[in-house]
Amino acid sequence: MLQTPRRTVSIAILLFDGVTALDAVGPYEVLARLPDATVRLVARELGVVCDGAGGLTFRPTATFESHPRPDVVLVPGGPGIEKACRNRDLLDWLAAAHRTARWTTAVCTGALLLGAAGILEGRRATTHWLAHQHLRTYGAQLTHERVVVDEPVITAAGVSAGIDMALTLAGLLAGDQIAQAIQLSLEYAPEPPYTTGSPATASPELIARVRASAQRPA
Amino acid sequence: MLQTPRRTVSIAILLFDGVTALDAVGPYEVLARLPDATVRLVARELGVVCDGAGGLTFRPTATFESHPRPDVVLVPGGPGIEKACRNRDLLDWLAAAHRTARWTTAVCTGALLLGAAGILEGRRATTHWLAHQHLRTYGAQLTHERVVVDEPVITAAGVSAGIDMALTLAGLLAGDQIAQAIQLSLEYAPEPPYTTGSPATASPELIARVRASAQRPA
Repeated sequence: MLQTPRRTVSIAILLFDGVTALDAVGPYEVLARLPDATVRLVARELGVVCDGAGGLTFRPTATFESHPRPDVVLVPGGPGIEKACRNRDLLDWLAAAHRTARWTTAVCTGALLLGAAGILEGRRATTHWLAHQHLRTYGAQLTHERVVVDEPVITAAGVSAGIDMALTLAGLLAGDQIAQAIQLSLEYAPEPPYTTGSPATASPELIARVRASAQRPA
Repeated sequence: MLQTPRRTVSIAILLFDGVTALDAVGPYEVLARLPDATVRLVARELGVVCDGAGGLTFRPTATFESHPRPDVVLVPGGPGIEKACRNRDLLDWLAAAHRTARWTTAVCTGALLLGAAGILEGRRATTHWLAHQHLRTYGAQLTHERVVVDEPVITAAGVSAGIDMALTLAGLLAGDQIAQAIQLSLEYAPEPPYTTGSPATASPELIARVRASAQRPA
């Protein structure tokens, strides 16, 4: 008896200089545990990519040219996002990949890159709280949720929200049972030591301090 | 007037082949935001280190020889931990570094390496839930908390617990205000999509499935 071959879902995590490492690695750790999925770190070239905090380097495993049509695109954010938003090769790859992808997703200020590529026009979306005002300039409807699903686009709030986004995406790709198993294998039952993780719960003084010290959105 | 120079806290995140990327990068992203701290990725050699999921490589920024006495040691876990526990150079560096460090810390199965280096004898500690039984063999007192502080040793539960641990550590190193600001800058107000992140809340069936599919602790 012939069996229909199971198709591997190809997932591309975009890398660029100044990417926030956790924006990429949180989702990577979730999505790499999906059965029948291949996660690649995609950049314009195979050279070394430096993270936004300056202490870590990534090595892309695929290029725009070798990997033009992933099933899922994931765009992390970081201090390098402004420069990335002016990179024509990157915007062209992203816009083209979005046209054939099942899901186009962003973490943190990665949403600004979706915006610059014309993907957020008229869509519900979110981004890092420090970058909320930028999102509107791309015609997006800013939505105050941690993970915003506006099929086929998913966006997440700042940095750590990528883990919540990736688990949501895992559920959409492979079903709740598999996503629940991944959450258990990552022992993701978070207990933040403080209640200051969102501007909705942090004090105005703390918000002002973080805003002042952020030269660029994280 | 003379000012006392502020001393930079040196933080060493250990790398080894088969490390779980998020075990290292979650804490990295928190600790790299500390003022007056330098975070280094330390390995025996400066060659490339592959992660446990097989899709990502790290490049260490310091070696055991160049970095023998960090102020803070952080040991991630991962599928490579068993082999790491038999690596004499690694255990020697860890045991020596622990003797002069202010804090020796572990995420996930990184605790087993602390155990193998003789650091957990008689101490309260935790690890990934799949590895609980191994912890006892090192004379540790298994403690069912997500982050266990037994000064000068801190251990955390599986994978994602490294973020909670690093924020706790940030508070101990730099004070609550700075740690709270880091939590806000990472927008760490988690909303896991499921309640299956801990064996205390997951169903027995899901626990059995994850246990069966885990060849080695994550």
